Amino acid sequence: MTTDLPDSALELRSTVTSHGTLELSLQDVPVPTPAANEVVVRVEASPINPSDLGVLIAGADMTTATVEGTPERPVVTASLGEGALAGLSARVDKPLPVGNEGAGTVVAAGSSAAAQALLGTTVGIAGGAMYSRYRAVDASACLVLPEGATARDGASSFVNPLTALGMLETMRREDHSGLVHTAAASNLGQMLVKLCQKDGVPLVNVVRKAEQEELLRSLGAVHVCNSSSASFSADLVEALKATSATLAFDATGGGTLASQLLNGMEEAANSTAAEYSRYGSTVHKQVYIYGGLDTGPTMLTRNFGMAWGVGGWLLTPFLQNAGAATVGRLRARVASELTTTFASTYTREVSLAGMLAPEAFNAYVKRATGEKFLVTPQTLP
Amino acid sequence: MTTDLPDSALELRSTVTSHGTLELSLQDVPVPTPAANEVVVRVEASPINPSDLGVLIAGADMTTATVEGTPERPVVTASLGEGALAGLSARVDKPLPVGNEGAGTVVAAGSSAAAQALLGTTVGIAGGAMYSRYRAVDASACLVLPEGATARDGASSFVNPLTALGMLETMRREDHSGLVHTAAASNLGQMLVKLCQKDGVPLVNVVRKAEQEELLRSLGAVHVCNSSSASFSADLVEALKATSATLAFDATGGGTLASQLLNGMEEAANSTAAEYSRYGSTVHKQVYIYGGLDTGPTMLTRNFGMAWGVGGWLLTPFLQNAGAATVGRLRARVASELTTTFASTYTREVSLAGMLAPEAFNAYVKRATGEKFLVTPQTLP
Repeated sequence: MTTDLPDSALELRSTVTSHGTLELSLQDVPVPTPAANEVVVRVEASPINPSDLGVLIAGADMTTATVEGTPERPVVTASLGEGALAGLSARVDKPLPVGNEGAGTVVAAGSSAAAQALLGTTVGIAGGAMYSRYRAVDASACLVLPEGATARDGASSFVNPLTALGMLETMRREDHSGLVHTAAASNLGQMLVKLCQKDGVPLVNVVRKAEQEELLRSLGAVHVCNSSSASFSADLVEALKATSATLAFDATGGGTLASQLLNGMEEAANSTAAEYSRYGSTVHKQVYIYGGLDTGPTMLTRNFGMAWGVGGWLLTPFLQNAGAATVGRLRARVASELTTTFASTYTREVSLAGMLAPEAFNAYVKRATGEKFLVTPQTLP
Repeated sequence: MTTDLPDSALELRSTVTSHGTLELSLQDVPVPTPAANEVVVRVEASPINPSDLGVLIAGADMTTATVEGTPERPVVTASLGEGALAGLSARVDKPLPVGNEGAGTVVAAGSSAAAQALLGTTVGIAGGAMYSRYRAVDASACLVLPEGATARDGASSFVNPLTALGMLETMRREDHSGLVHTAAASNLGQMLVKLCQKDGVPLVNVVRKAEQEELLRSLGAVHVCNSSSASFSADLVEALKATSATLAFDATGGGTLASQLLNGMEEAANSTAAEYSRYGSTVHKQVYIYGGLDTGPTMLTRNFGMAWGVGGWLLTPFLQNAGAATVGRLRARVASELTTTFASTYTREVSLAGMLAPEAFNAYVKRATGEKFLVTPQTLP
């Protein structure tokens, strides 16, 4: 150990109670002692990603939230929906840590050479419980940030960059040559624009607002379709024809967008087909739903032939299937392009206690594109 | 040639006209002369499969059908729906032959040894234009029927048997260990019951009527769930738990059944899961839609986690991907079990002209489970 560490430090916990409520609180937990190949990271920055909100909020109705406790130790209580407990039974009355990824300084290290080598470096880490002051992780799990990069730069080194890279890997593996991305003005979407540009991959961006269209065009995006525009359907088909994109990653999930994408891809495929095929085009059209901004039903109007698929896509199983060599290659790319291709922007910073203030949670539960929170666990209170 | 063949013979044609109508008629077409490796089959029996109706009817509204012409040469005319021509442009004013498969006697053969060896045999064939008196096919495409099997026995040697076998192959390839089948009382469904029994594969059958449930139980089916029963939801989950079936083949397509299957599979998977997973079970759940009995939208209520897929499944691309060795193995199995596992039953026989009579087409366009037509092209008129 090179730094005097406290015995215990704050960590955010989310509890679904047997009374049908969600409780968010800060707890004092022991600061870990690193095992031989572990390091302890002082977490300095951690994003609130849409993928964190499932564990954090558990589907509770945050309009019912009340805040008690003290400014240093607020306690938020909110109602879960009718019947929600059934689906949450495995976590009832268990205070769960939250936060998928973050970055900070290695302040303690186990005895192994690999762990010792990291002492004092700024690293990006992932694996949960990042809304916390100190976190022990395996040395091999650390992404050493490039020279000059701060914890803020490295806070989002995993989820968004690896998701963007995973989309491209999936495209190549499944023999597609172009991509469609919805909710495309997100931090992830902006990375994907830069990445596809760099790799020469045609990309159709679907956004919901004119200012999002402008933002993506300012990054150099060629095909941007605004779903609130009157010409959206036609614009989408034109973009699909121009790109021959047959794989979409959809963050919305519910509604008719997935169906519209498949039908547009089919129309684009048939526009170049020479003869009548009773089962539609033989071009395989795929939509992966990787988010659930719209939790309503997915409605598929099947005018897109028989060569199609819709399914769920998640980063973790993708990485597991991809294998260590591929993951290593992707991580190396993230490190080398961290402050360019994979740069993230945050609109607000909050402390751990700040996460539990109404003006914060009322904003981040909205998952609004363009609004992005960074948690700074070392900030007081 | 060993038989005196006519110069021309009848063939059924389906035409989508530029006036927005469907026209069904019989045409005199030249009887083919076989190339070196071809044989000419006198088609004696050919089923009307759901998969034939797309080309035959082209989505026309058969309640508007009128029949003119003569008893030997009826001509059926029916209206296509509003705007239907756009999707059918590639076949407008082209009289298309119809009929995916059939069986009959080899009455002429080309010069090759393989073709000559087939002379006089009864064979099952596939490849379209079977609603016809004579059909030339490559010798290698013929399935020689086992000793004693008639053309009626062999009429359905391809589509249903290979589809049933294809479902099992797909299950094994994609690492599932049990199947679900909807519209399970069909000829195909009955084959699948026998096949799964023989191969020891757990199968959940979904039917819509009590008599269909009885029929399948009489064949030895263990898990039969009747979707019109009040206890269907609970019955389905119990069957999914008992079988651990995570792959479904759905012939209905539209509505909420695919969603219900995925949610049931998820419930079954979670019933044995030890800990809370925010993204649902990690068990991959798949529904392949291979038919469209319900042409309405597919509505997916996504309470089944992220490890799922829904997609189209078709026999022809499956066989293309499976490769020649697999296809050969499957065909050999069909031949050896043609009158047992793969036996088909027909409720009505019609001649080519008989197909164009209202009492026939009003019945077969319904795709009613349990009603199955056999076309006997040699029957007059």
